Amino acid sequence: MPEHLFLKACLRQPVPRTPVWIMRQAGRYLPEYRAVRAKVDFLTLCKTPDLAAQVTIQPVDVLGVDAAIIFSDILVVPESMGMKLVVEENKGGPRFPDPLRKPADIRKLRVPDPAEKLSFVTDAIRLTRKLLDDRVPLIGFSGSPWTLAAYMVEGRGSENFQTVKEFIRAAPKDVHELLEKLSRAVSAYLNAQIEAGAQALQIFDTWGGTLPAELFREFSLRSIEHVVASIGRKDIPVIVFCKDCGHSIDAIASCGCHVVGLDWTVDIGNARKAVGGRVALQGNLDPTVLHSDPKTIRENVKMILAEYGKGPGHVFNLGHGIPPDVPVEHAKELVRAVKEESPRYH
Amino acid sequence: MPEHLFLKACLRQPVPRTPVWIMRQAGRYLPEYRAVRAKVDFLTLCKTPDLAAQVTIQPVDVLGVDAAIIFSDILVVPESMGMKLVVEENKGGPRFPDPLRKPADIRKLRVPDPAEKLSFVTDAIRLTRKLLDDRVPLIGFSGSPWTLAAYMVEGRGSENFQTVKEFIRAAPKDVHELLEKLSRAVSAYLNAQIEAGAQALQIFDTWGGTLPAELFREFSLRSIEHVVASIGRKDIPVIVFCKDCGHSIDAIASCGCHVVGLDWTVDIGNARKAVGGRVALQGNLDPTVLHSDPKTIRENVKMILAEYGKGPGHVFNLGHGIPPDVPVEHAKELVRAVKEESPRYH
Repeated sequence: MPEHLFLKACLRQPVPRTPVWIMRQAGRYLPEYRAVRAKVDFLTLCKTPDLAAQVTIQPVDVLGVDAAIIFSDILVVPESMGMKLVVEENKGGPRFPDPLRKPADIRKLRVPDPAEKLSFVTDAIRLTRKLLDDRVPLIGFSGSPWTLAAYMVEGRGSENFQTVKEFIRAAPKDVHELLEKLSRAVSAYLNAQIEAGAQALQIFDTWGGTLPAELFREFSLRSIEHVVASIGRKDIPVIVFCKDCGHSIDAIASCGCHVVGLDWTVDIGNARKAVGGRVALQGNLDPTVLHSDPKTIRENVKMILAEYGKGPGHVFNLGHGIPPDVPVEHAKELVRAVKEESPRYH
Repeated sequence: MPEHLFLKACLRQPVPRTPVWIMRQAGRYLPEYRAVRAKVDFLTLCKTPDLAAQVTIQPVDVLGVDAAIIFSDILVVPESMGMKLVVEENKGGPRFPDPLRKPADIRKLRVPDPAEKLSFVTDAIRLTRKLLDDRVPLIGFSGSPWTLAAYMVEGRGSENFQTVKEFIRAAPKDVHELLEKLSRAVSAYLNAQIEAGAQALQIFDTWGGTLPAELFREFSLRSIEHVVASIGRKDIPVIVFCKDCGHSIDAIASCGCHVVGLDWTVDIGNARKAVGGRVALQGNLDPTVLHSDPKTIRENVKMILAEYGKGPGHVFNLGHGIPPDVPVEHAKELVRAVKEESPRYH
């Protein structure tokens, strides 16, 4: 039986208060993180286990969050499959200079052994577990097959994902082949993270919401189901976070996961009614609230706790990653407010 | 009783086939539009009634759509209230160099007489009606109060609307004062468009979906309700299109409008069940489908017609504006496919 608040809440077990962590909590808003990044570039940080472990733990020490999430980037998986990944500072996000554009590009992709190609992540997990010394549990993660596919076909983040959507419509079989390869790579990667010590997993589907609901279920959710089903350890909670997919909460809750992550546009109270007792819910404060002031932050935390209501099964989080320009004091107030205001709901 | 297919469908009256028009149908994908724009800049086009009328009618002639929508821009309303509006070619969208940032900025805004400050729009409507000679009905439109407020506070389109959301949280009363002023301006503007000959109206809430569902209903939908209630002619169909608001279809359907516009992420079949017989639905093909090929376009049209199912109350449209780089032949195929495939559903 897990003793950690976060793990208990994921499994909808009774807890004395609501646990809280923050997506992208090891990030640029933290001076301690910026100090590390001043010395190394982003990919070097991802690929240097002792540095990755160091920044993973920072928000546990600084904010007092109830879980750590291993510092990495979702695009290391496509890189491990043979795609060249480039991250240039201050030039937009990471990108693939040679995006997938034809069936032969897909066929060339390898499904690697993560022990060989992604050992920097599993090493970082092992080291972080040791350094955390069981203070809080450690979350592993991956991008969803669809979100990775979208990046690999577009080459970078996109406004409307026109290229990958054209690909779906022109050659759905090729896209399914790509998703199938990605599902295998993601499954192996997540199982390797568990093997290394990850105590929970989150699957980030950042771009599922750009699809019509029906295509979301066919191209994104179905491959998430395959990944979840392939996870060997059934006692490890799996969180599925599909951004902008409020239309399919019910379907996501049936994908085999333990927790559904909600973005800030969804009413968490309505979502709870929709999922019944099937899964726990994670979320969902609008990240822009963190730009306001401590009083407003606390009021908004109270509103979300009240919307979720009494009983177990809530993991507090933002509805998306924490913005880089949030004052640390505001992030601290968020964590403090959840800890102080949530006991009355348990 | 309206004789036009489009107006009948808006009022859920029986029709022999589903009518179709395209958001942003008078736009850059049309060579005829680009020919006009080669001679004048965007704002001059908006403010020259005979040119605005000319481009308004182009898609009726070229594509055979079942409705025209007056060529204009939603930001002429804030401009008429006293804000300086700048549109620089190839430098991103239109912007307000002096955005609203403090209560005094809001107090300075005027609620103008549209007959005085926006006569270029009403003149264009009168001229278009004359030139259309009742071939198809003419739609007038406005941005929603919230969407206009978001532009006026941010100064331009924004990735996360942080500034206007901070404004909501720091000074909700001031934001309500702004929305109240905008509601009055939009109401007067829409009533003036009807007076000039608009036969239906669409309210565009482009940025409602950036808000948490509860704030969407408080800050955007409530002011839309005020606007809809203030429209004098109750026989004129009002379409409300809130992008990324699939979470609140039921609430939008109760705002007093006749038609709810859907973006492409929503299942139109589910939406029809949710709204029952209260309103008609407009939408909702993913605009990126228009980049594919005629066969794929027709298949996707058929899927949406089938999802909506049998019976009246469907106006076919895209789920967002037509992209500027769509081949005209593809837009024609969309219109042709709706006309040819929809009779079996009526």
